[in-house]
Amino acid sequence: MRIGELSRETGVAIPTIKYYVREGLLPAGRLTSPNQASYDDGHVRRLRLIRGLIDVGGLTVSAVREVLAAVDSPGEPVHEVLGAAQHAITPRPAATPEGMERARQSVAELIRHRGWRVGPDHPAFEALAVALATFRGVGRGEFEEILDDYAAACERVAAADLAWLGRNAEVDGMVECVVVGTVLGDAVLAAMRRLAHVEASARKFEGAAEGAAGEGAAAEGAGGR
Amino acid sequence: MRIGELSRETGVAIPTIKYYVREGLLPAGRLTSPNQASYDDGHVRRLRLIRGLIDVGGLTVSAVREVLAAVDSPGEPVHEVLGAAQHAITPRPAATPEGMERARQSVAELIRHRGWRVGPDHPAFEALAVALATFRGVGRGEFEEILDDYAAACERVAAADLAWLGRNAEVDGMVECVVVGTVLGDAVLAAMRRLAHVEASARKFEGAAEGAAGEGAAAEGAGGR
Repeated sequence: MRIGELSRETGVAIPTIKYYVREGLLPAGRLTSPNQASYDDGHVRRLRLIRGLIDVGGLTVSAVREVLAAVDSPGEPVHEVLGAAQHAITPRPAATPEGMERARQSVAELIRHRGWRVGPDHPAFEALAVALATFRGVGRGEFEEILDDYAAACERVAAADLAWLGRNAEVDGMVECVVVGTVLGDAVLAAMRRLAHVEASARKFEGAAEGAAGEGAAAEGAGGR
Repeated sequence: MRIGELSRETGVAIPTIKYYVREGLLPAGRLTSPNQASYDDGHVRRLRLIRGLIDVGGLTVSAVREVLAAVDSPGEPVHEVLGAAQHAITPRPAATPEGMERARQSVAELIRHRGWRVGPDHPAFEALAVALATFRGVGRGEFEEILDDYAAACERVAAADLAWLGRNAEVDGMVECVVVGTVLGDAVLAAMRRLAHVEASARKFEGAAEGAAGEGAAAEGAGGR
């Protein structure tokens, strides 16, 4: 297909497509004449992946470049490539040295308590410490009281993620599947947590009377599987 | 304190502090002479909140302004203000109309199945639909197979969040607590999910032999609270 059709198919403007090609995110089309190129379904899929990482995942163009480089390196162990992708995704802002030290101890304690086999060199270890140090910095250090609930929830999500990966990723697409699942999964989790907050708030603040008046009275039994 | 001390206390550069004052994120200091202002602990705390929302939460300056306006509106019902804050936080990228329609149906079905009392007018409803449409757009529509696990995990997190809010938020700080917990909680969840992935991958890919050789052999029993 020509670039115009690629643009219509994906909803990405032609100048943006050309920009992604220049930036090395999208492979150039196959030249069919000196000033005409042809694109295929691989371009459609890659372009949708780029837009998903940027629009839904909130990644920068340079983070996307790093992630796609990992996706395109054949033969690298999944662990390493996932680490590279996560490194690009994980923010690393500043906090006071004392606050960070204390927060790192909390993270190490949590990991030990849960029996997780992951060390302080993982980028997410530091990202978690930054978030905890920030909670404490704004006067909400007691947030750590509920860390264990977060950890249990994350264990459930991670187990589901890995099972999904095992069922659906052909070997070729494994790394792309990991990247997509990691980045878009964050967006799913954030949106769904807000929806769950509404239900939890409704139960807590509005009380049983209003709950019974609505149609969601059977909500308690909705634990599914 | 003077602006230099405020800067040292928070690690935020003086020009940045002045920028936040001009942008209306931070209240001006109390003038002690025509060209000297005095700042207090309220400024320290507000500045840390601003940096946390920007650095850890990934919010833009204008999203922070919207969120802080909600924090500073006394008397508004928590639900409404939280909605405003979430609106600022939730990304709203484009997807094809057909893809979005199908994704919205999936979200509605999930909400019905879980018995949640939340409608399609909530910004997170649309944000979740965008994420699901993006999964399908990049050829990973089967992600919806594990949505129910995500929902169960989010119910647990939301219940913990609300309990924490009830224990720790004095009435005055309730809305700020909601905003901090929502935005920084996302960062905690994303980082912790990556750590949980490492443990889940270790179990799945490295197998029992390597697990027993390491020191995390008792990981199965780590479900405690």
